[in-house]
Amino acid sequence: MDYGSETLSDLIRSLARLPGIGTKTAQRLALHLLKADDEEAEKLGNLIASLREKVRFCKACGSITEKEECAICMDPSRNREIICVVEGPQDVLLLEKTRHYKGLYHVLHGVLSPIDGIGPENLNLAALEQRVKSGEIKEVIVATNPTVEGDTTALYIAKTIEPYGCTVTRLARGLPMGGSLEFADDMTIASALERREKI
Amino acid sequence: MDYGSETLSDLIRSLARLPGIGTKTAQRLALHLLKADDEEAEKLGNLIASLREKVRFCKACGSITEKEECAICMDPSRNREIICVVEGPQDVLLLEKTRHYKGLYHVLHGVLSPIDGIGPENLNLAALEQRVKSGEIKEVIVATNPTVEGDTTALYIAKTIEPYGCTVTRLARGLPMGGSLEFADDMTIASALERREKI
Repeated sequence: MDYGSETLSDLIRSLARLPGIGTKTAQRLALHLLKADDEEAEKLGNLIASLREKVRFCKACGSITEKEECAICMDPSRNREIICVVEGPQDVLLLEKTRHYKGLYHVLHGVLSPIDGIGPENLNLAALEQRVKSGEIKEVIVATNPTVEGDTTALYIAKTIEPYGCTVTRLARGLPMGGSLEFADDMTIASALERREKI
Repeated sequence: MDYGSETLSDLIRSLARLPGIGTKTAQRLALHLLKADDEEAEKLGNLIASLREKVRFCKACGSITEKEECAICMDPSRNREIICVVEGPQDVLLLEKTRHYKGLYHVLHGVLSPIDGIGPENLNLAALEQRVKSGEIKEVIVATNPTVEGDTTALYIAKTIEPYGCTVTRLARGLPMGGSLEFADDMTIASALERREKI
């Protein structure tokens, strides 16, 4: 469509390429930015442009930081004998929010997915093996998502790491808290039944 | 929340300020940009930062352009005796898409809304009066939205412009094409009944 401005058309096309944003939303966002305070649009633009330059991934665990190592890896109060393996940096935030975990993390930046051509070499897996090899680690909790790809990745990790004499566990499966049987899918109910616990 | 990077936190806060984007979506977008190609994020950032500098509003009608006047105002084939008044630049695009209108436009950049403190002086209304005063204009079609504010604005325009001997019309109201009585609201049905047409 002809928006009357090449810059605006380019911006709408760029925004529409973001996940979950279609042309209509992209158009609304672009027109909002056009009407917004000069500062707001400029600040947002500069933040996006400088993002890749400023933000790095922790050289130990792969989570987000602006330094060499992330705050969690540098925190002396964390338990250095447990590593929780997650798919992406957002999962670290979710687990930290629970305040129930005091160990370290390891971010894979993806999951094994042969269909999409993602093999072990495309993930942050070699570094995990190195960390376990060093001997300090007693347990690796695999917190990948409960999907086919997540489970495949969990099995792959277990196979690679168990030879080093380290326990590998994964997050429990069952009914979500506050959920109802009525709204749970077959797989979840079957899984909850199979893993039933003594009261 | 502590994202491990000040730049990332700032970006998520900035994105969450956009219309229709909450913290969760902002977080997803920011992490996507972090993973995206270097070029993609940088290009998007630069487009947003330069938007306000590059894009201007046509000095005649107020719609979007990168020059002094917009393409529609400069097009000699358009009918210069009709002006269609719209709330925002997006409405020009919508009307152009129908390919049913060959006149000029006038963008108000808002609607009268005393509750939000938006009076006639905050809108592009004085310029409209000037255009009509010049004498060339035969008809002003008010295409504001069928809301209380849109109707108030339409009435205000009619009152200001009719003294210059120019016809003021507004878009028809009734059932939308392809719609069904079942899903139309009371006001729309009442309005369609009142404005019934002979077959």
